[in-house]
Amino acid sequence: MKFKRTERIGAIVKILSDNPNKIYTLSFFTEKFNAAKSTISEDLLVVKDVFEKLELGRVITISGAAGGVKYIPKTSIEENKQFLMELCEKINDDSRKLSGGFLYLIDLIYNPVIVAKIGKIFASNLDYSEADYVVTMETKGIPMALMTAKAMNLPLVIIRKDMKVSEGPTLSMTYVTGGSNKVESMSLPRKALKPDSKVILIDDFMRGGGTLKGMKDLMHEFGAKVIGTGVFISTTKPQQKMVEDYISLIELDDNGETTIAKPNFKRFKDEYRELQF
Amino acid sequence: MKFKRTERIGAIVKILSDNPNKIYTLSFFTEKFNAAKSTISEDLLVVKDVFEKLELGRVITISGAAGGVKYIPKTSIEENKQFLMELCEKINDDSRKLSGGFLYLIDLIYNPVIVAKIGKIFASNLDYSEADYVVTMETKGIPMALMTAKAMNLPLVIIRKDMKVSEGPTLSMTYVTGGSNKVESMSLPRKALKPDSKVILIDDFMRGGGTLKGMKDLMHEFGAKVIGTGVFISTTKPQQKMVEDYISLIELDDNGETTIAKPNFKRFKDEYRELQF
Repeated sequence: MKFKRTERIGAIVKILSDNPNKIYTLSFFTEKFNAAKSTISEDLLVVKDVFEKLELGRVITISGAAGGVKYIPKTSIEENKQFLMELCEKINDDSRKLSGGFLYLIDLIYNPVIVAKIGKIFASNLDYSEADYVVTMETKGIPMALMTAKAMNLPLVIIRKDMKVSEGPTLSMTYVTGGSNKVESMSLPRKALKPDSKVILIDDFMRGGGTLKGMKDLMHEFGAKVIGTGVFISTTKPQQKMVEDYISLIELDDNGETTIAKPNFKRFKDEYRELQF
Repeated sequence: MKFKRTERIGAIVKILSDNPNKIYTLSFFTEKFNAAKSTISEDLLVVKDVFEKLELGRVITISGAAGGVKYIPKTSIEENKQFLMELCEKINDDSRKLSGGFLYLIDLIYNPVIVAKIGKIFASNLDYSEADYVVTMETKGIPMALMTAKAMNLPLVIIRKDMKVSEGPTLSMTYVTGGSNKVESMSLPRKALKPDSKVILIDDFMRGGGTLKGMKDLMHEFGAKVIGTGVFISTTKPQQKMVEDYISLIELDDNGETTIAKPNFKRFKDEYRELQF
C-alpha cells in the first residue's frame, strides 16, 4: 500500500503519540509506509514542527545503532497553569466538603482525562531519564501513577496494604502514617523490582509524609533508589514533611475550618517558579 | 499563527487520538488553526482516511447542533489476535508458576502499554454507547479498567474492599467469592454514581464469578444497570459462572496440575468468532 505525505504524517503522529518515550527506527517507518528513508526523514521534520508549534511535547532524534525517533510528552506552562487553576476551583467547591474535614475527590482523581494530564505534568517535571519503575501504593494514587508510567514509558509497581499469598514470596513492612499516627503495613512481592533499580514514587496525597517515607524505606529494602517523588496534593501543615525533594501539584491550606486548594508552582522545576502567585 | 496542511493534519490526529470519544466541533479547529471551515473539512477527510487505512480506529462525523467529529478507538482483528497470542505465551511461561497453583501476572496487568491495549480491545467489543461509567473493584483490575474508561471517554468508579470514612456516606455489602467461598465486603460512596446509571463492569480475573455477581448486586443497590461486562482472564472451571453475558479475553484451562492460557475469541463479538481455534 502507498501513502500520501499527509497520511504518513498523520499516522506517524498517532504512533508516536500513543507510545511516549518509545524509540522507533527509521526502518520501522520505511517498511510500514513502503517509502524511502529520505521521504520519512522529511516527514519526521514536519512531525517535529507540529509538536513544537502546538506545544504538544517534543520529538527527538537519537543517533547511533539503537537510534531512531521518540516522542517525549511535555506540557506547556500555560496549559498546566490553566489546568491546575480549573482543578483547584473544582476542589474548592463547597459541595466537596465532607464531615470530619475530608474532601470528596475520587471523581476527579479517578477521571481518565484528568489523570492523563496529571501523568503528563509529572513526566514534564520529574527527571526519569534513569528510572526503571514508577511505584505507587494502593488505591487512590493508582490511576495517576499509571498515567505517569504511561507518559514515562515505564512499568508500574503497586505496593499493597495487605500481603497477598497469590503473588509469591513477599516483603512486608510496617510504617507510621503522619496524619493519624497509626501503624499500617505495606507489602510487595520480591519479584516486583529488579536489583539496583531506580524508581519514581507517585502518590495522591501527602500530609506528614509518613506513607511516602514508608514507601522510600521499602524501596531501600529492595535495594532500590528513589530518584524522584511526585505528589498530587500536599497540605501546608505540617510544614515539616518526613520526605524532601518532592514536587506537589496542588497545596491544600487548612486554616482550622476552611480548606483552600492552590496550584503549588513553587515546588515545580525552575521554569514554573515564575508563575508563583 | 498559520499552519500548513501537513501540520494541521498532524495536530488534528494528535488531539483526536489523545481524547477518544470526545466530540470536537468544526469551529474548534477553525479557531485553533486560523483556517476556513472548508479547509478543515478537507483536513478531516484525510484524517479519516489515515485512521481507516492503518486500522487505527474510526473518525466519525456527528451532525446537528452538538455535532462535530470524534475518534472511536477500534483495534483490528489481526492486531488483537497477535497481541493476545503473545500475551498468552508470556502467561504460559514456566517462571510465572507460583506454589499453590497461582500465576504471577502483576508485571503484565500493571504494564501501561499492555493495559492500554486491553482497554482498547474492551472498547472495541463492548457496546458502551449508553454507558455512564466504567466500574471496577480494587486492586488488580484498576489499571485495565482505567484504560478502558479512557478509551470509552467515561468516568471510572472503583469499588473498595473496606469502607472509607473519608469519602462520605457509603453503601457497603457482603458477597461470597466463588473460588474460596469466603465472605468479603465491598463498599462505594453514595455520591459515586448518579441515579439510574448504566455501567460497564471490568475485572481482571473470574473463576466462579462471585465478585462480579457482588458488583452487579451493588450496582442494583445504587439503582444502576450493568449493560456490559469485560473480564481479562476467566477460567474454564467451573463452567457455570455466577454471571452471564460477559466477554473474557483469555481463558485459563487448569487441568489439575497444568494451566494453559488461550485467547478466548468465542466470547467476543461476531467478527471474532471466526478466529476460534
